[in-house]
Amino acid sequence: MGHSLTIERTLKKKSKPPENQLGFGIHYTDHMFIMDYTVENGWHQPRIIPYQPISLDPAAKVFHYGQTIFEGLKAYRTADERVLLFRPDQNFKRMNRSNARLSIPQIDEEFAIEALRQLIQVDQDWIPTSAGTSLYIRPFVISTEAYLGVAPSKSYQFIIIMSPVGPYYAEGVNPVKIFVESEYVRAVNGGIGEAKTGGNYAASLKAQEGANEKGYSQVLWLDGVHRKYIEEVGSMNVFFKINGEVHTPALNGSILDGITRKSIIQMLKHWNIPVVERTISIEELYDYHAKGQLEEAFGTGTAAVISPIGELNWRENKILLNQGQTGELSAKLYDTLTGIQNGLMADPFGWMVEGTVLSKQI
Amino acid sequence: MGHSLTIERTLKKKSKPPENQLGFGIHYTDHMFIMDYTVENGWHQPRIIPYQPISLDPAAKVFHYGQTIFEGLKAYRTADERVLLFRPDQNFKRMNRSNARLSIPQIDEEFAIEALRQLIQVDQDWIPTSAGTSLYIRPFVISTEAYLGVAPSKSYQFIIIMSPVGPYYAEGVNPVKIFVESEYVRAVNGGIGEAKTGGNYAASLKAQEGANEKGYSQVLWLDGVHRKYIEEVGSMNVFFKINGEVHTPALNGSILDGITRKSIIQMLKHWNIPVVERTISIEELYDYHAKGQLEEAFGTGTAAVISPIGELNWRENKILLNQGQTGELSAKLYDTLTGIQNGLMADPFGWMVEGTVLSKQI
Ligand SMILES: Cc1ncc(COP(=O)(O)O)c(C=O)c1O
Ligand SMILES: Cc1ncc(COP(=O)(O)O)c(C=O)c1O
Repeated sequence: MGHSLTIERTLKKKSKPPENQLGFGIHYTDHMFIMDYTVENGWHQPRIIPYQPISLDPAAKVFHYGQTIFEGLKAYRTADERVLLFRPDQNFKRMNRSNARLSIPQIDEEFAIEALRQLIQVDQDWIPTSAGTSLYIRPFVISTEAYLGVAPSKSYQFIIIMSPVGPYYAEGVNPVKIFVESEYVRAVNGGIGEAKTGGNYAASLKAQEGANEKGYSQVLWLDGVHRKYIEEVGSMNVFFKINGEVHTPALNGSILDGITRKSIIQMLKHWNIPVVERTISIEELYDYHAKGQLEEAFGTGTAAVISPIGELNWRENKILLNQGQTGELSAKLYDTLTGIQNGLMADPFGWMVEGTVLSKQI
Repeated sequence: MGHSLTIERTLKKKSKPPENQLGFGIHYTDHMFIMDYTVENGWHQPRIIPYQPISLDPAAKVFHYGQTIFEGLKAYRTADERVLLFRPDQNFKRMNRSNARLSIPQIDEEFAIEALRQLIQVDQDWIPTSAGTSLYIRPFVISTEAYLGVAPSKSYQFIIIMSPVGPYYAEGVNPVKIFVESEYVRAVNGGIGEAKTGGNYAASLKAQEGANEKGYSQVLWLDGVHRKYIEEVGSMNVFFKINGEVHTPALNGSILDGITRKSIIQMLKHWNIPVVERTISIEELYDYHAKGQLEEAFGTGTAAVISPIGELNWRENKILLNQGQTGELSAKLYDTLTGIQNGLMADPFGWMVEGTVLSKQI
């Protein structure tokens, strides 16, 4: 693939939002990356351009058949003014697995990371510095062919946009209340649950709304076949500390292979805390709780990093976890992982990589 | 809802494709209908404008979280130059059921049909007249809010585009070969299978590609729980004639409530042919075939109307249906339904309604 990235700088920089009012995914930087795919030319014309609307034929497939995928990762500015990315190789690997499931052509992962570095370099003054802030990066692919036959698109756009974000929970890391969903299903084995694609999130909206109305912040998904095995929490993977061991649902084809999940597993093993990836039923979990053996629960994901769970409600059966307080292990994982990500702590795993282009002038 | 439809006519009409080269969903008429939704104003500013690109912020939800729905129906021009629509009330009712599942605000169905009539009136010279042709109508809703939180959008666009289409199968109505899908799943109970939304089609692409590679035109979907009950065929509902009775999978929450399906059921009952809506396993179907009792099979949908099935391949177990020929009942259903739709046959069911605005000048 012969790629030659062009950069068109904006003539009109936006004013930046105050760092204490960032929120999540609301503000976007001055530039975006975009690259086109056609059957004839493959992926071509990679370019950084001013952040601007996307213009598509109303028959473009993305508006009708959901042939899209996305990723989410973060860049951090360290105290010594370096810019670090957390495991971007993993995100772009997963992007290509999602692409494969959605019949979207593969993207050169190394090139994508290099393009991202160039984009961050151009917009580096957008990376916030206050505690808990970061630059959220959203790579995504949309199908653009203007044709209503149900078949993979013949053209695509790969785009990266970036958003300065505040801490996921404005009030700080506090345990969340989770509603165990018994009516709706997010994904099923053989479906698209393992891919990071719009359809899974579309399927989740109704349940999420219902949980919010009942005063819960997210839903815990059960499997679509037996309706009893634990899958994920909202858009996070989920972990349980039971009798000193940490248990998490195994990657079964219908849940997302989270990068925070795999990092937490690696970190726990590094600390010699036993981790078990397996099938976990909701009933079993309630049994452990009844026996006083369910010590902590938490969700993991790029946005919130670690989100302690304070309450579960399964068919109006409510249980309080760790007295509704953030558990010791949850707190330690949060502090360590965010410490590594912010460059405040040593990174024994080699997870953090440079986020900007240091070698050559652009 | 106070709606006042405005019409902006194009200054540059496109040239129309020859009627024998229409294809499906390739060409679009000169105009489109569009209406916006915001939380403050509800659905507002309905307008017919020249067919043109849609311009959206790259953070618009439709590009990320698949919050979209669509419909598909057809208008026909009769020999006496009338324009008829086939059961549009059913499509707009289903649209609102899809909207409800996807947390999209309801749309006034009567108004939508009236807007469609106005659009057809403006573009009525686009309705083809040759045998087997029609005007395919694609209403759809996209979520437009530029916000990456996973939550229902706060703004939407409802759009109608129209495409003159040829007969679905260029070679005429011939039996198709169908591959019974054992690896991939389209939808599961509790999911979004019942809604006409992008995610279901995104989930189907990979299986469809695989079937095509093996020489099959579509897949037959099995249920996602037991992987043995018959759901649909590609984007059609499916019927089997067994021992003189017609059997079709019951609406179970994971298949689409097809308008052709319900019309075929009504027509069969009108003819005093027994119809059974029930759970049908693939094994049972193969057993009936072995006993020589599986007489015909066909798919039903707006695009192809009736699509006879000539062969099924389940785990390399191939069976030929009705010697690979179009069955008598399939042919009669096709001729009658397309006859009614084209205005060539009487319409005892009251399905066809006027497609243009006859009363008032626009
Ligand atoms: C459905 C779902 N599960 C889990 C996760 C966590 O994955 P990661 O740790 O890679 O962010 C995400 C994404 O954030 C997700 O969307
Ligand atoms: C998945 C699916 N099943 C069945 C059908 C048939 O529905 P209808 O007869 O309303 O066109 C369609 C749409 O055409 C569809 O997309």
